[in-house]
Amino acid sequence: MFENKLVLELLERYRVLWALGHASSLMGWDSETYMPREGVEERSIASAELSLLSRRLLLENIAPLVEKLVGVEGLNDFERGVVRVLWRDVERLRRIPENIQYELAKLRSEAPVVWREAREKDDFERFKPYLSRIVELERQVAELLGYEEHPYDALLDYYEEGLRDRDVRVMFSTLVPSIRRVLEKVMAEGYYPREHVLENVEYRREAMETVNREVLNILGFPWSKGRLDVSAHPFTIGIALSDVRITTRYEGRDFRRSLFAVIHEFGHALYNLQVDERLKMTPLAEGASLGVHESQSRFWENIVGRSRAFVELLKPILDEHLGFTRDYSVEELYKYFNIVRPSLIRVDADEVTYNLHIYLRYELERMLVAGEIKVHDLPELWNEYMDRLLGIKPKSYKDGVLQDIHWSLTAIGYFPTYTIGNILAAQLKNRFEADVGRLGDVIGERRFELVRVYLREKIHKWGAVYPPKDLVVKALGEPMNPVYLAEYIENKYSRL
Amino acid sequence: MFENKLVLELLERYRVLWALGHASSLMGWDSETYMPREGVEERSIASAELSLLSRRLLLENIAPLVEKLVGVEGLNDFERGVVRVLWRDVERLRRIPENIQYELAKLRSEAPVVWREAREKDDFERFKPYLSRIVELERQVAELLGYEEHPYDALLDYYEEGLRDRDVRVMFSTLVPSIRRVLEKVMAEGYYPREHVLENVEYRREAMETVNREVLNILGFPWSKGRLDVSAHPFTIGIALSDVRITTRYEGRDFRRSLFAVIHEFGHALYNLQVDERLKMTPLAEGASLGVHESQSRFWENIVGRSRAFVELLKPILDEHLGFTRDYSVEELYKYFNIVRPSLIRVDADEVTYNLHIYLRYELERMLVAGEIKVHDLPELWNEYMDRLLGIKPKSYKDGVLQDIHWSLTAIGYFPTYTIGNILAAQLKNRFEADVGRLGDVIGERRFELVRVYLREKIHKWGAVYPPKDLVVKALGEPMNPVYLAEYIENKYSRL
Repeated sequence: MFENKLVLELLERYRVLWALGHASSLMGWDSETYMPREGVEERSIASAELSLLSRRLLLENIAPLVEKLVGVEGLNDFERGVVRVLWRDVERLRRIPENIQYELAKLRSEAPVVWREAREKDDFERFKPYLSRIVELERQVAELLGYEEHPYDALLDYYEEGLRDRDVRVMFSTLVPSIRRVLEKVMAEGYYPREHVLENVEYRREAMETVNREVLNILGFPWSKGRLDVSAHPFTIGIALSDVRITTRYEGRDFRRSLFAVIHEFGHALYNLQVDERLKMTPLAEGASLGVHESQSRFWENIVGRSRAFVELLKPILDEHLGFTRDYSVEELYKYFNIVRPSLIRVDADEVTYNLHIYLRYELERMLVAGEIKVHDLPELWNEYMDRLLGIKPKSYKDGVLQDIHWSLTAIGYFPTYTIGNILAAQLKNRFEADVGRLGDVIGERRFELVRVYLREKIHKWGAVYPPKDLVVKALGEPMNPVYLAEYIENKYSRL
Repeated sequence: MFENKLVLELLERYRVLWALGHASSLMGWDSETYMPREGVEERSIASAELSLLSRRLLLENIAPLVEKLVGVEGLNDFERGVVRVLWRDVERLRRIPENIQYELAKLRSEAPVVWREAREKDDFERFKPYLSRIVELERQVAELLGYEEHPYDALLDYYEEGLRDRDVRVMFSTLVPSIRRVLEKVMAEGYYPREHVLENVEYRREAMETVNREVLNILGFPWSKGRLDVSAHPFTIGIALSDVRITTRYEGRDFRRSLFAVIHEFGHALYNLQVDERLKMTPLAEGASLGVHESQSRFWENIVGRSRAFVELLKPILDEHLGFTRDYSVEELYKYFNIVRPSLIRVDADEVTYNLHIYLRYELERMLVAGEIKVHDLPELWNEYMDRLLGIKPKSYKDGVLQDIHWSLTAIGYFPTYTIGNILAAQLKNRFEADVGRLGDVIGERRFELVRVYLREKIHKWGAVYPPKDLVVKALGEPMNPVYLAEYIENKYSRL
C-alpha cells in the first residue's frame, strides 16, 4: 500500500499529528457528553493550545517533506492521496496567519455559548457582533486562500474539496424547481396531517434507549468499536478507526426524532468504521468529504430508515418497548415518519422540503461572503426567503436565523454539503439496485450485511484516498447528478 | 505569585505541556470508563505518541530555561516550586532514553487489558510475559536514574519525592509489629464475625448510586466541577482544576465496598479541587506526592467515613435508599464498616490489616527490583508472605498476585505511598483535633466546611509548591511519624 520511502517517512512523522487529532476528538466528544460544566474554561484553552501545536508541527515537520513529494511521479493512489490531503492542509495553514487561526479557534469556543444564550432569549442583537466578526474573518480567509470566480469558492472548498459556487448553483437550479413542484402537489392533495398525534405522545427514556440499541443491532453497529451517548445535538465522532461514537437526544416526545438521529449517525459511523484498516493512523483514515459523509448518513436515515420495508422491521421493536405504537399499522407509521409539510426548522424538515432550507442558507451565505449583504440584513432576508420557498415565515429569531449552530462554529460554506449528501444518497440507491437488487427486498430480508459490504467496497474503504469528485465517479460510474434525488422525491412523494 | 520574568516565560512555554497532560488525563479516564473495547490499540499508540511529544517539548523548550533557573537566588516559594518540579522531570527524562519511555507508555495501555483478562481467567501465565518485561524495564530505569543505596530508591522517588528504601524499612519496622499485636488481640477476642450477613445482601444499583450521590452531597462534592462514574477499579483523575472525576464500582452486594470507594476518591478529588486557582495550568497544579494524596483519601475514607459520628449521618440515607439497613443499629453498621479480619484482597482490607498487604508488596517489589527474585517466583512468595503476615493463603491467582492493577500500569515503587497516606491521615487527625476540635463533634454537626477549609489551608492550596517532606512539616509541625497510625489503630481497635 505504502512503499515510497519519503511517503513512509511522512506517515511516520504524521503519527503524532494523528495522536493530537485523536486527543482533540475525544476532548470534543467529552465536551458535548460528560464534561462537568465548569470544565469548559480550561478545556477551551487546552483545545486551542493543541490546535496551535498541531499547526506548528504540521508546518515545521510535515510541510517540507510534503513539498518534496508534490508532483513526484510514480506514486500509487494511496501515496498520492497522502500527499494530496497533507498538501491541502499545509497550503491552507501557510496562507492563514496564526493570529487569524487563533481568533477563529477562540470564536469557535466562545460564539456557540453566546449563540445558545441568544437563541434561548430570542435575541439576535446579542449574537450579531459575534456573527459579524466571524463573517469578516471568513471573508479575509477567502481572500487569503484565493479563488478564481467567487470568494465563496474558497470556503466551499474547505468542506468539499473541489466544490465551486457554480457547481452549487447548477445543483440547486435543477433541484429547487423540481422539489417545489412535488411540494405543491403534495400540499394540494392534503394527504399529510397538519399535526400528527404521535408527535405529542410521550415516551419513557429507558424504553427509547432500548429501541435505539435494538435498531443499531439490526443495522449491525459494532458495539466493541463504538458507543451511543446523549448530547444536545446528535453527532458522530471518529476518535479512531476502532472507536467511533454516536449520540442522540431524548426529548421525551415525538420518538422518531431520537430514532432517526440514531439511524443518521449510524450512517456516518459506518463510514468511519469501514475505512481500510491499513489506512489507520494516516491522513487518509477519514471520509472523502463532508458531502460524501452526509450521503452515508442520509442513505441510512432516509433511503433505508424511512422506507416501508424498514418500518416493517421497526414495528415489532417499537411495539415491544414503546407500546403505544401498537395502535398504528405499518402504513400509518410509515406515513408518520414521512410527513411532508413546510416547517420552520431545518433539522426537523422532511425529505422534500429539507433542501429548500439548505438553498436558503446557501443564498444568504453567498451574499454575505461577497459583501452584498450584512449580518444586519439576515433576519429580514431569512423571512423573505422562507416565505418565497416554503410559504411560511418564522415569528421569532430562534425559529429563523438563530436556529443553526453552524455559523457560531465559524462554519460558512458547510451547508451545501448537506444537499450534496442527499443527492449522492439517492444516486447510491440507484446504483445499489442496479448492482445488487431491490433495496426494499434486501431490507425486508434483513440482509444489511449486503448493504454494509457494498458501501464498504464502493466508498468506505477508500477513506480520503481520492478527492470526492473522483471517488463519486469511481464508485457510482458518473459524477454527482441532482436528477437522481429529484426523481427519488418525485417517485416517493408524488404517487400517494 | 509569579513575578520573575524567566519563570513567567517558563510558565508560558509550559502551557502546551499542560494541555497535553490535560488530553492524556482525559484519555486515561476514558480508557477506564467509556472507551469501546477495541479502541484500546489505537488509544495506546496515541498515548505513547503524546507522551513522547511531551518529552520532546519538555527537553527542547523547557529544559534550557529551567536549567538557567536552577539555583537562582531570590525566587519566591512558588517560583522555586515551578523550577523544582520541572527540573525533576527534565532530569528524569534526560536519563531515560526515548525508546524505553515509549515502550513503557505503550505497556501502560496494553498491559492492563491483558491483566484484566488474566485476572478474569485466573491465568497468571497470560500476564507473566508483560509483567516480566515491565520489571525488566523498571530495573533498567532504576539503573539509569541512579541511586545511593538501593535500586528501589530510584523508583520510590518518582512517586514520593525524597523517599528512600531506608525510610520505608523504618516505617514498617515500627508499624508491622504494632499492627500484628493489635490483630492478634482482636482475633483472640473473637469480637468480629467471620462473615457478616450484610456482605451478602444484594442492593439495587440505582439505589446505591443514589446513596453515593447523597453522601457526596453531604461531604460537599461540587458537581459542576466533577463527575462520578463507574470503572473496574475506583480512581480519581484531575483533568483540570475545575474538572476532577471519580469512579466507583457496583458489585451488587456488600454495599460498603462501593460506598467507601466513593468516600476515598472524594478525598483525592477534594485535594485536586482545592489547589489554589492561581496555580491553574502550571506544573504546581497537582498534589505534592502520592503519599500526601493518599493521606487525603484515607482521612476521608477511614478517619471520617468509618467513624461512629459519620455512621450516624449515613444511617438515614442508607435506610431510605437501600432499606435493608433498617434492621441494623448505628452501632451494628459501625461494626460492619470496621470489621477486622485477615483477608485476601488489599482493597477490601480493614484499617488494621491493610498495611500488612502493603508491606507484602513492598518486600516483593524490593526483591524484584534488586533481581533477587523473578516474576516467575511471585505467586508462591505471595502466598508465603500472606501466610506469614495474615495467616491465610489465596486459592487463586486473582485473589493473590493478580489482584492489583498497579504493576500492569508499570507502577513499581508505588505501593508504599499507601502506607504513607495512612500514617499521614492519622497524623492529620491528631493535628486537626489540636487546632480545631474533636473531629467526631465536627462530623456530628455536619460541619464539613470546617474540615474542607482546614485541609485546603494546610495542604491542598499549596499544590506541588513544596516537596512532600517539607509540606508535611509545614502543615503538621513535624515529619511523618508512624507512631500516630499505630496509636490510632491501637485506640480504635484494642478497646472494644
